[in-house]
Amino acid sequence: RADGARLWATIHETAAFGGTPNGGINRLTLSAEDGQVRDWFRDACEAAGLAVSVDALGTQYALRRGRDMSRPPVAFGSHLDTQPTGGKFDGVLGVLAGLEVMRTLNDAGIETEAPLMVVNWTNEEGSRFAPAMMASAAYAGDFTADEILAKRDAAGVTVAEALDAIGYRGDVAVGGQTIGAFVELHIEQGPILEAEAKTIGVVEGGQGIAWFDGAITGFESHAGTTPMPRRRDALLALSEFALAAERIALDHAPSAVATVGEAAILAPSRNVVPGRVAFTLDIRDPRSATLDAMEAALHAAAAEIGARRNLTVELARIWRKEPVPFDARVVAAVEAAAENLGHPRRRIVSGAGHDACNLAARVPTAMIFVPCKDGVSHNESESATQGDCAAGADVLLQTVLRLANA
Amino acid sequence: RADGARLWATIHETAAFGGTPNGGINRLTLSAEDGQVRDWFRDACEAAGLAVSVDALGTQYALRRGRDMSRPPVAFGSHLDTQPTGGKFDGVLGVLAGLEVMRTLNDAGIETEAPLMVVNWTNEEGSRFAPAMMASAAYAGDFTADEILAKRDAAGVTVAEALDAIGYRGDVAVGGQTIGAFVELHIEQGPILEAEAKTIGVVEGGQGIAWFDGAITGFESHAGTTPMPRRRDALLALSEFALAAERIALDHAPSAVATVGEAAILAPSRNVVPGRVAFTLDIRDPRSATLDAMEAALHAAAAEIGARRNLTVELARIWRKEPVPFDARVVAAVEAAAENLGHPRRRIVSGAGHDACNLAARVPTAMIFVPCKDGVSHNESESATQGDCAAGADVLLQTVLRLANA
Ligand SMILES: NC(=O)NCCC(=O)O
Ligand SMILES: NC(=O)NCCC(=O)O
Repeated sequence: RADGARLWATIHETAAFGGTPNGGINRLTLSAEDGQVRDWFRDACEAAGLAVSVDALGTQYALRRGRDMSRPPVAFGSHLDTQPTGGKFDGVLGVLAGLEVMRTLNDAGIETEAPLMVVNWTNEEGSRFAPAMMASAAYAGDFTADEILAKRDAAGVTVAEALDAIGYRGDVAVGGQTIGAFVELHIEQGPILEAEAKTIGVVEGGQGIAWFDGAITGFESHAGTTPMPRRRDALLALSEFALAAERIALDHAPSAVATVGEAAILAPSRNVVPGRVAFTLDIRDPRSATLDAMEAALHAAAAEIGARRNLTVELARIWRKEPVPFDARVVAAVEAAAENLGHPRRRIVSGAGHDACNLAARVPTAMIFVPCKDGVSHNESESATQGDCAAGADVLLQTVLRLANA
Repeated sequence: RADGARLWATIHETAAFGGTPNGGINRLTLSAEDGQVRDWFRDACEAAGLAVSVDALGTQYALRRGRDMSRPPVAFGSHLDTQPTGGKFDGVLGVLAGLEVMRTLNDAGIETEAPLMVVNWTNEEGSRFAPAMMASAAYAGDFTADEILAKRDAAGVTVAEALDAIGYRGDVAVGGQTIGAFVELHIEQGPILEAEAKTIGVVEGGQGIAWFDGAITGFESHAGTTPMPRRRDALLALSEFALAAERIALDHAPSAVATVGEAAILAPSRNVVPGRVAFTLDIRDPRSATLDAMEAALHAAAAEIGARRNLTVELARIWRKEPVPFDARVVAAVEAAAENLGHPRRRIVSGAGHDACNLAARVPTAMIFVPCKDGVSHNESESATQGDCAAGADVLLQTVLRLANA
């Protein structure tokens, strides 16, 4: 059994790096605060006797030796970066529970057959640099390291520059660290487990995701003198598009979601009709065909709005992640561990993207969910109980022991 | 007759202060670029023998002596600040045509009975600091100087600090400079004169304006896991509100207009449902009762959207300017000058706010409009012809001679 109180203490200790007055965390990937929590994590891993290495995209790997070092390590972990309005659990729980697994095994003097490894993946959140789960995608071969290193944030800073700024451009080749199996513990970030009073979600896979960059080009004009019918108002076009995206998601209820998460007027002024707007769009569904149908409907809406309002609505897909099924054997190991520990549980599909969804393409993978309050995440008020976090850590511990000793 | 070529040259010379690659001007009030054009204007006025003074809000007054110095000066001018996507004519034409009037009278050795004065009013545009036409409103007594000095831009800088930064907090008391009559030459910023092939608009008054600050408070949540019906999406609420404002303006067609000119998501992220949005709203109509009806409809829309989407939509009016009729005698002087010069003309109501609309409360006032291409303003492509600018300067010259020698 993991030490739930120790895990809880590390969660609250590290929440200080980027902590906000509202009890959340603002720790964008590769920021100074992310550098601080990475240093903390490295030091804690080394104090636990783990060998820490860093790859060219900054992902941290902390290895605990096994009896049979010819076997690839059983890995687990998640991410330490957060959203700008992030909570204390998203990602953090999975990494710190991984550390807790190592500490528990050390305390009990337990050796495993295969080595174990806890991983902190770079830029899971995708808020500063798109796409999300960037480093794990490169690990799985979806992108080259150079493609990722060249991506820029809104201020024009590249991933390479951001890595150098905090000293986390490591020497392990991306994808060079072999992994035998991967298990990720995470809060559900949705309402299902809480509603059904289940402590453990046995995650069978992740839904599909597509991300778009949008640009609307109308014409700036005077707010006092331009008659309504002559306007080419980019904000009104965005308004119609955002509402169309909501309707298109509802057309595929209850599974589909669509979100315009960023939207900015260029050169805004109170008395200027907005001429140019930039925005982002995120759509998701567990079925690939539904994503296709939504994409088609969104392009049709953009074209219709553009033609009617005499402006251009551009929509460029920058990322698409197909729905991912997890590995049956690893899912079964999670289920057996939860059963053995007597936790109420259910099978579940992840609504959020996770590094595990990328790993699954290359490594037998599954996930463990625990409930979070009201299903709220990507919010400073995100909350989970000490008991549920400890239960998740226990299931993680039992699962990795099964996998490493099998 | 004014020297149209010299006027045209000064318009293009000063367009370099804050000039943009697209041929426009980005010269927000009290910016470094505004400081540069103010210095240029002061030097040019002094070179023309005018006595330049500056009031506590930075407004520049350049006096040409008259035979009877006991009479208050006949004043004319406009503003040298621009929108972030401003053109070369909005405001600039009125100030530089005023300078041209002085130069023409000097060249011709003409003395007037009353003194003459060209004025550059601070912050006509209202883009950096709200409301628009701030200094002329304080001149007319709508605000105290201290109220204006304390207003802040989006970065938190006060008017007082911005004035000090460019050295334009002058020693003339606000409202202390007596003015006998005021005439403002301006581009129409609308399509009417061009459509009817009139060179001169004899402006009878300005329409009413109300400005609002809006705030929407929903709840940040995860874009992948939050079911559509559970969302409290502040951007979708803004979208509905902006479209409601458009519909409400169209309900009062063709005279009314409504514009959401600024809108920003707080802590935006691609995979976060927007929780908080700040926005601005500008509504206008020539009738006060229509403004009242629009305000009521807008508040009703805000309440309905907020209730239905389970969030709050706040709408606070920060400024209201009632419709303004100009002085019959000064309007008649403009009309007589245009008639005498043989320019095609028509009576017109201003859709834009102007310093003249504030002056009218205290001083006999009127305005002269000239056409601009396609009625476009607050856009870098704003354009007017040399001939129309010269015609406007001629009408200004003849009008002020009539008023100063009457
Ligand atoms: N787990 C999580 O919130 N990941 C961020 C990526 C996404 O799902 O948008
Ligand atoms: N003339 C002009 O564009 N003034 C700005 C104030 C306004 O009408 O919004």
